[in-house]
Amino acid sequence: MKNDFSASLKILAGEIDKVIAGSTFPRQVKPAYLGRAMTSYPANGGKRLRPVIMLWSAALAGGEVKKLLPAAAALEIFHNWTLVHDDIIDDDDTRRGKPTAHIQLAGEVKTSPERQKKFGSDMAILAGDLMQGWAFELIDQSDTSAEVKLKLAEELRHFGYIRLVSGEAVDVAMSYDSAENITEAELFAMQSGKTGALLHYAARAGWMMGRGYAAAWDEPEAAALGEFGEYLALAFQMRDDYLGIFGKFEEFGKPIGSDLAEGKATVLLIHALKNLPEAEKELLKSYLYRASYTATDLEQVRKIFTGAGSVKYLLDLIADKTTKAQKALAQLPDAAERSYLSELANYLINREK
Amino acid sequence: MKNDFSASLKILAGEIDKVIAGSTFPRQVKPAYLGRAMTSYPANGGKRLRPVIMLWSAALAGGEVKKLLPAAAALEIFHNWTLVHDDIIDDDDTRRGKPTAHIQLAGEVKTSPERQKKFGSDMAILAGDLMQGWAFELIDQSDTSAEVKLKLAEELRHFGYIRLVSGEAVDVAMSYDSAENITEAELFAMQSGKTGALLHYAARAGWMMGRGYAAAWDEPEAAALGEFGEYLALAFQMRDDYLGIFGKFEEFGKPIGSDLAEGKATVLLIHALKNLPEAEKELLKSYLYRASYTATDLEQVRKIFTGAGSVKYLLDLIADKTTKAQKALAQLPDAAERSYLSELANYLINREK
Repeated sequence: MKNDFSASLKILAGEIDKVIAGSTFPRQVKPAYLGRAMTSYPANGGKRLRPVIMLWSAALAGGEVKKLLPAAAALEIFHNWTLVHDDIIDDDDTRRGKPTAHIQLAGEVKTSPERQKKFGSDMAILAGDLMQGWAFELIDQSDTSAEVKLKLAEELRHFGYIRLVSGEAVDVAMSYDSAENITEAELFAMQSGKTGALLHYAARAGWMMGRGYAAAWDEPEAAALGEFGEYLALAFQMRDDYLGIFGKFEEFGKPIGSDLAEGKATVLLIHALKNLPEAEKELLKSYLYRASYTATDLEQVRKIFTGAGSVKYLLDLIADKTTKAQKALAQLPDAAERSYLSELANYLINREK
Repeated sequence: MKNDFSASLKILAGEIDKVIAGSTFPRQVKPAYLGRAMTSYPANGGKRLRPVIMLWSAALAGGEVKKLLPAAAALEIFHNWTLVHDDIIDDDDTRRGKPTAHIQLAGEVKTSPERQKKFGSDMAILAGDLMQGWAFELIDQSDTSAEVKLKLAEELRHFGYIRLVSGEAVDVAMSYDSAENITEAELFAMQSGKTGALLHYAARAGWMMGRGYAAAWDEPEAAALGEFGEYLALAFQMRDDYLGIFGKFEEFGKPIGSDLAEGKATVLLIHALKNLPEAEKELLKSYLYRASYTATDLEQVRKIFTGAGSVKYLLDLIADKTTKAQKALAQLPDAAERSYLSELANYLINREK
């Protein structure tokens, strides 16, 4: 990130981090280690994309960003509790190079490894619960009107619970099904909830906060920003799926082929399974659910996806979503923050990692 | 429940149930079975004590109860999400005679029993999360001012998250420790959070809602109602501990002695372990963590607790908390709802089940 937007992102992320670090909410929690677990995810990294998008939108709407930092921090904490519970569900041991919350909390009790695991998971459920309370507490601490606070919370319940948590639940359910049984429309609906909803909220709520009245939620610029967030999320997610097969481990950071190992439904896989002739389809399926993949395996899989037209299909889709995201932005006032949003989108969609 | 209060309780509980059943929030959740799981706990029973206490307090403060039903329903939903997550943590299979949420949800996927269990637990985490959003959505639907809504949510974050969830977490941590290492003060602090906080909130928030302005939260009557709720909860919890040893299974509904089987820290156990001479203390400890208890075992344990003075100590404590709860009520206006609160307290503290 070496463009204009990255300097602004860095400054705002620093301000958000100060609000999070200064919040007294987690310090009131007992046992004290549970309060510390609540702060460990935001402390361990993350780019603060959601809160910064929110603040850029607020600035575009003429808002005073400084007054709105707690609401932006709230969004980061909301995002992070979903990660804490996701990591329990996915049984992941590390996030951002550090132990996940449930692994970290397991170490707080002296007992057998099995009971430690149960203890860590139970405590991490509670840490994620507490972070939900914390997120809404931060919304409340923004310097804005009561009606804007109520609207921020109301829409976060819609986008953050109904849409995002439903998306997560459908994702869990899909992981128990075969990719062959999942349609592209179902996949997009799930991703739009799991990733799109909170980016939609971030961009759109920012505009409302910047205006300073609840009705701004329905202004055309707010709707355009919501669209921007939603298209960006889909393009971002598709880029992720692309890099999961075509990326380089050194850059992407997670094992190439892990999507295949999980049999994860992606645009590539759904498209290929639908369009390949029977023999090649069976060949592709033979590469799913393997414990590991050699360079030759991956080369073969890439050939199959390319031959099926799935790669072109995916890249066209990414280009389409990107164009739509950028078009939505064109409806916003021509200001520095609009360029930042546009540059950030290009960065995210063209990333190698 | 055959007194005056029970008729009012029944009517109000019915009104609260209508609000819960009519709420569209869970119907927007996907998969549909997850939305249904969100409604199953309130649908399976429960006395609606917390919301009814809230509404009686509101009536005492001169409020129009009908307008405040959604906030009361919110409290029931908030209480119920804590049960959903508690049941995962405690690995309980049934609640109110029905399968717990995670057991029920496990049946929604066809796979091995082990993977079903994981699926059920993961989905129940998400159901409890969604219910948190739902609770605050219901607060928002009450017919009251923006400042009262914000105050209701703010105090629910304090009492329902910081105090209640901390109490739950400390309870989990205590269950990994020996009762000998736990002081009575630590036990009371935990119970005050786990049970006292939400009853405090129920009674006190009701008064504020009835008055119709946020500053009523700090009026002497509100503080007195908060005290009432807190003392009531402690007395209720101690009665539970008493019945756990001295109750009759046919009435109490859970196996007598199960507290001993878990080695659970209770006033009885902590007092006896502290005050018994070494030999009898060792005898008492030999009764902990057993798989089952004969009538003779229980008779023996009862004798030990009685001989140690622990039973008298517990009954005196219950009487003391009850007196304090009733004294707090005396500060409220002399109206029907004050009698209801008083009668309900007597009923709960003298119950056999």
